[in-house]
Amino acid sequence: MANAEFDLISRIRARISARSDVVLGIGDDAALLQPPPGKQLVVTTDTLNTGVHFPEATSPADLGWKSLAVNLSDLAAMGATPTWCTLSLSLQQADSAWLEAFLDGFMALAERHAVSLVGGDTTRGPLSVSVTAMGWVEAGGALRRDGARAGDDVWVTGTLGDAAAALQAVIEAREIAPFLRQRLERPTPRIAAGQRLGGLAHSCIDLSDGLLADLGHLCECSGVGAEIDLAKLPVSPALDSLDAAQRAHWQACGGDDYELCFTAAPRDFEGVIQALDFAEVAATRVGRIVAGQGVLALDAEGERWQPLRPGYEHFA
Amino acid sequence: MANAEFDLISRIRARISARSDVVLGIGDDAALLQPPPGKQLVVTTDTLNTGVHFPEATSPADLGWKSLAVNLSDLAAMGATPTWCTLSLSLQQADSAWLEAFLDGFMALAERHAVSLVGGDTTRGPLSVSVTAMGWVEAGGALRRDGARAGDDVWVTGTLGDAAAALQAVIEAREIAPFLRQRLERPTPRIAAGQRLGGLAHSCIDLSDGLLADLGHLCECSGVGAEIDLAKLPVSPALDSLDAAQRAHWQACGGDDYELCFTAAPRDFEGVIQALDFAEVAATRVGRIVAGQGVLALDAEGERWQPLRPGYEHFA
Repeated sequence: MANAEFDLISRIRARISARSDVVLGIGDDAALLQPPPGKQLVVTTDTLNTGVHFPEATSPADLGWKSLAVNLSDLAAMGATPTWCTLSLSLQQADSAWLEAFLDGFMALAERHAVSLVGGDTTRGPLSVSVTAMGWVEAGGALRRDGARAGDDVWVTGTLGDAAAALQAVIEAREIAPFLRQRLERPTPRIAAGQRLGGLAHSCIDLSDGLLADLGHLCECSGVGAEIDLAKLPVSPALDSLDAAQRAHWQACGGDDYELCFTAAPRDFEGVIQALDFAEVAATRVGRIVAGQGVLALDAEGERWQPLRPGYEHFA
Repeated sequence: MANAEFDLISRIRARISARSDVVLGIGDDAALLQPPPGKQLVVTTDTLNTGVHFPEATSPADLGWKSLAVNLSDLAAMGATPTWCTLSLSLQQADSAWLEAFLDGFMALAERHAVSLVGGDTTRGPLSVSVTAMGWVEAGGALRRDGARAGDDVWVTGTLGDAAAALQAVIEAREIAPFLRQRLERPTPRIAAGQRLGGLAHSCIDLSDGLLADLGHLCECSGVGAEIDLAKLPVSPALDSLDAAQRAHWQACGGDDYELCFTAAPRDFEGVIQALDFAEVAATRVGRIVAGQGVLALDAEGERWQPLRPGYEHFA
């Protein structure tokens, strides 16, 4: 390790708010952490690469926020309470100003959820951020993808399609409303919503690849199918005035929403509304789980709807 | 996610040996894991980038082994028992033959230590492997960097400098003895040694940047200094015939050894020998901890020795 790498690491260490359950954080061969008694550990890893998962012009602060947010969103979809994370950062060069800006975003979100950064490394290479996030659920209390049952309602939190609309504007170098930009670059992991859905939701997934694709994963894991009513998909005011076909495509197939999609028994309708009201997140019932397989999207006339293009694909 | 990415993920899933404490492995938003009661969690993350941490010509199987080995080596240096890991793999293209070969190496080492791969992602990007490894120690039983005391003996496991000699041969496109190649490309994490050193070693670190550099980190964390007797550094038969100055440099400053360096009270000399004999690893006493700061290397005449070049540096 060079002095440059030590300088980066000491800058990172200087920004950490340690939790009392961090016995030993950054600075030894590994972190040493005290688990809460009687719970199960929840672990997820996601990597963001420049030019693949984010435009090269993305600000370091937004990248810092988002690299943690996509991982916390996975924990939210399990109903977990986040506690710790590690960060692997590959940079073309040791740039302390860039790092400080990155940490501004990363730590802003970490502090919001009392997540301690406990380890990781900085290496030379094309810009890439890999985060592992850890958290806890009561034993047996995790929200899983495989619990959906025919007859369940299908719900989503928040609004859909905002990030896809914003990304398209970025690609076309058009001006973007601040709300849409924030939805793309500073997504809000639905931690409180996930926690409140324990004991209510039969299954849950976070929306990163688009509603139809992600609900398809959930249905496959659960051995069921689903029908979605396009007209019911929640829309933000920023998207309300758009061409209907384009908007429907972004809502049903756009990636990067980081909302939760979950299923629950129809008798728990009021319970879901109350739980998510407590979590201060809107919840919308958008369809139902059916016997069979596959996800069918229906337009306002109840006719089968076809997306304009397939969803976002890596290795495409 | 594209079909290509799903194909890679299903190839990975097909290769996993699940532990009984993996409640939910790859396939949900996050892994769900059952901690052993009364222990502390040990977590480490290390990333290997092509052209920085390994030559581009490295075989995928060797890269798979080494990407896990460097992380297990960190757990070994804590005295931990490894249990689980996640893998983030960035590939220029979805190449299933490459992936299968990578998994040959990765899983061979994972199975040796009963480590379950429980999550991760595959993304498009320049070849990069980021692994997070998790394990457990008895509460209060971790080996740390900050416990060295003046008067301690300094020990190392195995032999030193082999990987640096092999890397030099790779760079110069010279033929390499199979033993040396294995030391570079298939390092052995000293898990059993770390476990046996609990209650004996006062401090421990794994050797990735070279003995003098890594012992320097240990001394800094412990607020002490150290003296190393160059003539006592353990040497493999493959290096025994080399020019003495070159050999000393590789032994004292060469990276990638992944041996353990630890300190223990002189009265525990026999205990250390027996513990590491049980772990089937050679142990050599190479110096002592002294009051003060910094690491001094002494030649056979007891004179201060200067390395030929500084140790390996990222961002150099």
